[in-house]
Amino acid sequence: MLAVKYELIKECKRTGARLGRLQTPHGIIETPVFMPVGTQASVKAMTPQELKELNAEIILSNTYHLYLRPGEDLIKEAGGLHRFMNWDRPILTDSGGFQVFSLGPLRKVSEDGVTFKSHIDGSTHFMSPERATRIQMDLGSDIAMAFDECVSYPCTREYTEAALERTTRWAERCKKVHNHKDQALFAIVQGGIYRELRERSARELTAMDFPGYGIGGLSVGEPKPLMYEMLDCTVPLLPVDKARYLMGVGSPDCLIEAVIRGVDMFDCVLPTRIARNGTVMTSHGRLVVRNAGNARDFRPLDEECSCYTCRNFTRAYIRHLFKANEILGLRLTTIHNLHFLLNLMKGIRAAIADDYLPEFKDRFFAKYGL
Amino acid sequence: MLAVKYELIKECKRTGARLGRLQTPHGIIETPVFMPVGTQASVKAMTPQELKELNAEIILSNTYHLYLRPGEDLIKEAGGLHRFMNWDRPILTDSGGFQVFSLGPLRKVSEDGVTFKSHIDGSTHFMSPERATRIQMDLGSDIAMAFDECVSYPCTREYTEAALERTTRWAERCKKVHNHKDQALFAIVQGGIYRELRERSARELTAMDFPGYGIGGLSVGEPKPLMYEMLDCTVPLLPVDKARYLMGVGSPDCLIEAVIRGVDMFDCVLPTRIARNGTVMTSHGRLVVRNAGNARDFRPLDEECSCYTCRNFTRAYIRHLFKANEILGLRLTTIHNLHFLLNLMKGIRAAIADDYLPEFKDRFFAKYGL
Repeated sequence: MLAVKYELIKECKRTGARLGRLQTPHGIIETPVFMPVGTQASVKAMTPQELKELNAEIILSNTYHLYLRPGEDLIKEAGGLHRFMNWDRPILTDSGGFQVFSLGPLRKVSEDGVTFKSHIDGSTHFMSPERATRIQMDLGSDIAMAFDECVSYPCTREYTEAALERTTRWAERCKKVHNHKDQALFAIVQGGIYRELRERSARELTAMDFPGYGIGGLSVGEPKPLMYEMLDCTVPLLPVDKARYLMGVGSPDCLIEAVIRGVDMFDCVLPTRIARNGTVMTSHGRLVVRNAGNARDFRPLDEECSCYTCRNFTRAYIRHLFKANEILGLRLTTIHNLHFLLNLMKGIRAAIADDYLPEFKDRFFAKYGL
Repeated sequence: MLAVKYELIKECKRTGARLGRLQTPHGIIETPVFMPVGTQASVKAMTPQELKELNAEIILSNTYHLYLRPGEDLIKEAGGLHRFMNWDRPILTDSGGFQVFSLGPLRKVSEDGVTFKSHIDGSTHFMSPERATRIQMDLGSDIAMAFDECVSYPCTREYTEAALERTTRWAERCKKVHNHKDQALFAIVQGGIYRELRERSARELTAMDFPGYGIGGLSVGEPKPLMYEMLDCTVPLLPVDKARYLMGVGSPDCLIEAVIRGVDMFDCVLPTRIARNGTVMTSHGRLVVRNAGNARDFRPLDEECSCYTCRNFTRAYIRHLFKANEILGLRLTTIHNLHFLLNLMKGIRAAIADDYLPEFKDRFFAKYGL
């Protein structure tokens, strides 16, 4: 009996896109889905209630951050991550692999695992596949990710291959210790920007039969066409009856292109991060609401948007809030950006259901200015 | 026809407290009332919707801040302050007197008005009674305050007297230019900590027949008993059929003591400011939720509280949010503190209505640890 089960509802006849349903212990998720990121057990500036009002169906949180602060033991004592943060819908936890590898010179990789220094206080820690898995079992997320080695871009073929091999061995070790019946463990396909390595990683991991697969190491600086090429060679090797999750992707064009290539799940800090800097996504492209040009603009951020922000506030007011360093400013832009992406995914699902995804894409791209 | 009309509902037989109703162009306010402060056209970290959910009936905003940024002309162009910030309930605007005088060496007082330097960019500005009144008419608040001179504590009797006299003359000048039919102009009683000066100020201003009276220059550093003494000699001189507003007061004990002395309205940044520093008011006194002692405390901030924060989150989680610099932390404490004070005022109104205010006070003080 699987904790998480992917059900394919419909395959698009004209693209590789698919409509699906992901059953988890905390509810059913309609895919393709975008997962807002709550790195430290909070989607920045949002309450769980607001996320529900935006129809967020699943959120992501981070093993690395929660391990360091407040610690998985405290969260376990609180009754698990869902209760700790008061979110009763599904949660996916990243394994910490990406975060640890982002530390650069602050970490050292061995076959056993990774020794790294905390970005908070410089203290030394050791993370292994077993450790990362046990932490995620303590957190009690619905979907845990295997501990992987993500390489940077660019990276030599030689090192990328070594990291891929290690990622496969580590995935096996994660699987061995994982025994949480209400949690699924997904593996992560690596292989950098090398077709053969991507294919090899996908083959090795699918042979181990995980309940779902992440595609990692993309959107790390490589040109977008290269990312699409990697999806083109990776996704077809993944089983049809399992969910496919492209990690760290959240720009509207990449979401659409990846869905067309058969991806089901996404996460990214982009919408919340640019919101806090005063930039929003609108049906006509990005808008830097902080700019002086908006000082006397009494239109909503996006005239076609129905979010709380756009129904109630003007660009002029939101710009004022940013200039005056008022927290409400970034709250309003965060609500808008999350609504924008969640609404985009809803549009994508409708387009797959009614067979007009290519037209949906063309229309969206033209309007967004892509 | 007055824009704002105070209706006395009931006088407490055992204290000077009174239950009232204040009619304004944007709705009726039950008094005694606490007004959350939205200095820069935003109650920090809160949406208007959340304020309504907390049953905030009126908020305060600041002439000085809005004049400097974004400017009253922009707000007028937006359709007034209510529309600018999307708040359709009453707004009271402070005149800017207190803010200008808080600038200390950055301002120079003359009979005409005050020359001061902006706290934002150091630019030089001039504010006069006429100017402050016209700005408030542009903002379109329901209640405007006369431009006054607030003295610091301690301050010589001689200077306090000169400032009082100037405040009276300035109140007259404000009244002369005020001609907004949907806005009431309240005068501000000054006189520092000198009984005779307070009495003189109250007599001079009430002789001019304003639709309401502020009591200014208190809670500026003087001992609380001295503040209560000043209320004891000032309030009885104010007309029974006009609202009395004690400016800048918001600690629970002062609210109760001032209500007992016949005050109807209050404002203070205290609940929102301490919230952002991780301190909350609870039925058992203040709690510094940031403290390490709360790390594994899975109780709500206040077990007797019914606010969104206390219904859904633990001290441990909120402490984690503060430690991790998550905005949600200060949002949750802000909601709680505003709920606490608004709920306290509700309790006070019920206690006046049902004649148990002295018992209410004793019980509250004992529990709060006062």
